[in-house]
Amino acid sequence: MRGRQVLKRGRAICKGRATAAFTPGVARQWAGCTNQPGTQNPELGTKNAKPYSHSAARSLHALTMTDHARIGIVTVSDRASRGEYEDKGGPAIEAELFKILLSDWEAVNVIIPDERKVIEATLIDLCDHEQCCLVLTTGGTGPAVRDVTPDATAAVCEKLMPGFGELMRSESLKAVPTAILSRQIAGIRGRSLVINLPGNPPAIHDCLMAVFPAVPYCIDLLEGPWLDTDPEYCPAFRPKHAKKPGPAAG
Amino acid sequence: MRGRQVLKRGRAICKGRATAAFTPGVARQWAGCTNQPGTQNPELGTKNAKPYSHSAARSLHALTMTDHARIGIVTVSDRASRGEYEDKGGPAIEAELFKILLSDWEAVNVIIPDERKVIEATLIDLCDHEQCCLVLTTGGTGPAVRDVTPDATAAVCEKLMPGFGELMRSESLKAVPTAILSRQIAGIRGRSLVINLPGNPPAIHDCLMAVFPAVPYCIDLLEGPWLDTDPEYCPAFRPKHAKKPGPAAG
Amino acid sequence: MRGRQVLKRGRAICKGRATAAFTPGVARQWAGCTNQPGTQNPELGTKNAKPYSHSAARSLHALTMTDHARIGIVTVSDRASRGEYEDKGGPAIEAELFKILLSDWEAVNVIIPDERKVIEATLIDLCDHEQCCLVLTTGGTGPAVRDVTPDATAAVCEKLMPGFGELMRSESLKAVPTAILSRQIAGIRGRSLVINLPGNPPAIHDCLMAVFPAVPYCIDLLEGPWLDTDPEYCPAFRPKHAKKPGPAAG
Repeated sequence: MRGRQVLKRGRAICKGRATAAFTPGVARQWAGCTNQPGTQNPELGTKNAKPYSHSAARSLHALTMTDHARIGIVTVSDRASRGEYEDKGGPAIEAELFKILLSDWEAVNVIIPDERKVIEATLIDLCDHEQCCLVLTTGGTGPAVRDVTPDATAAVCEKLMPGFGELMRSESLKAVPTAILSRQIAGIRGRSLVINLPGNPPAIHDCLMAVFPAVPYCIDLLEGPWLDTDPEYCPAFRPKHAKKPGPAAG
Repeated sequence: MRGRQVLKRGRAICKGRATAAFTPGVARQWAGCTNQPGTQNPELGTKNAKPYSHSAARSLHALTMTDHARIGIVTVSDRASRGEYEDKGGPAIEAELFKILLSDWEAVNVIIPDERKVIEATLIDLCDHEQCCLVLTTGGTGPAVRDVTPDATAAVCEKLMPGFGELMRSESLKAVPTAILSRQIAGIRGRSLVINLPGNPPAIHDCLMAVFPAVPYCIDLLEGPWLDTDPEYCPAFRPKHAKKPGPAAG
Repeated sequence: MRGRQVLKRGRAICKGRATAAFTPGVARQWAGCTNQPGTQNPELGTKNAKPYSHSAARSLHALTMTDHARIGIVTVSDRASRGEYEDKGGPAIEAELFKILLSDWEAVNVIIPDERKVIEATLIDLCDHEQCCLVLTTGGTGPAVRDVTPDATAAVCEKLMPGFGELMRSESLKAVPTAILSRQIAGIRGRSLVINLPGNPPAIHDCLMAVFPAVPYCIDLLEGPWLDTDPEYCPAFRPKHAKKPGPAAG
């Protein structure tokens, strides 16, 4: 099989667990993470969050690095996280990734409420500890008071990638004029690319089709796993000098 | 009548007064606001400006909430504020709104100089005290040293809406290549949407036509008054699930 | 001759020197600038960098102001700065400027490594001391860990000009989908316009063709020298009211 879904929790407090085949670090359980993210991540929630440690991560990465990609899928929704509403965004992203990616990958699924500190803690965990080379969020990108996904993303990323938001809004504008209400952004934390997607499955499709052709080369530049896409569904672009490293290079 | 213009001052120190029909709070007079905005608004002019209080505003809003919309129109111009130059931007915005809106609305007009602290104080007043669901500025968006409207807007908004600036510049580019010199942005303060428009009336028209279809649904998401637009002049878009609340819903 | 290239250093530590015809300030030599930029520019490298002093610069500018434009060209590349790689971006920018500009101008060339503090110090020097009305960088705009040119640019500019990055990415997208990986921005420091360009010469061409029509009027608004472009190669746009000042006005 091409990808594998890790177990989801019905009322996921925080996230799906890594599979036995890939268990970086110790198993962690976030009891009551909504109320006390700071106790496990004291640096969170401030503008001066301790940045990702490149050297530490690099050595960990060297131990675990394969072409197997882990991709975080984060549903941000108060109602879905309370089980009052079926999560549609997360499954829609996963279904798209099954169509897009030919190389080996694995989803790390998370459903969390629209709480900025919880979103920040989740993104940090997926990037730094779960070693997801790509983290895709869905939901919470609008102007309403509870929509804080882009703000949390900006707070934990060292670099923002304005071209992703510009292109996604520009594509979504072809469907609806309210596309300009999406504040979705993308950014880099350490060696991970984080992209905010909308909540609505058709809009998720439009946005992924628009930006995914650039994602594999971005992951290359971040020294992550080599991603191959289905050239008929979503052709990835790499400059001529970009070559797959290692014995499988061709 | 569909909208009503409140009185303007020739050399408006700060802003037009609310009409008798709608007078939230006490009548305030900003004597010498250009020099001493800090005395009435001590928190202004710093990056750590005290944020809008949602709970206080919500209860005030509950008392006064109607479908009657108040819209702030802020002309930012040194010369217009000194009376050396006829304000063309403010009247152009108002004329557009008369064509766009079918639902009841009222303009709150202000003419102020290109002083960042005065602009910040004016935006805060229009959002928090005058309860404008929408504030449109004109002027001060360029690269010159006195052009500081977007900087003031960013300083008082909790959330920025990058899609507005992107779309307005993209539309204006169809007319002139210097459209990229506009730094215009939009953002949310509390329950108000603030949009920077250019100073030039034809550019104001182009920008409003581009973004206004998304404005009524944005105001809905901010729990503001229901806005109806003329579908032949500027059709607003709302998703199917967006329904007008209250007894007049249909 | 229309423009003149100042001498380049093979392993340029910091920058080319001003020509004898135009030597503002004392000749400065940055010995070991990579390690100790702070010793000459103690305010650098912090978010609270001392801003450009308009009044001081204005009086200096009044003494030296002519229609002769100085344009900084900054190649940001670890390998080029060590001499391991031939700089292609800088010469490509200069070749484009020779085609674009008919008015008198002079290049100030610099090749520096991908070190944020060195980039910041270089931009400050070119804007404040070398009095370049325009500074064009090449390289370092991607997502990789050493790509920090936009971050350095944002740190030294008082105003950002989002329209430049939006338009350059939008144009580059016509060539390659990976254009969204460029984080290139533009901004204003004092009376200078700073624009990040990509590293790849064809992309440099596309980006300059897209934004340069707006550059001369931007420099006008910053009270810099009057730039004339070749109307057949790259027609500049100025509004009707923009008139060339001084005795040569027509």
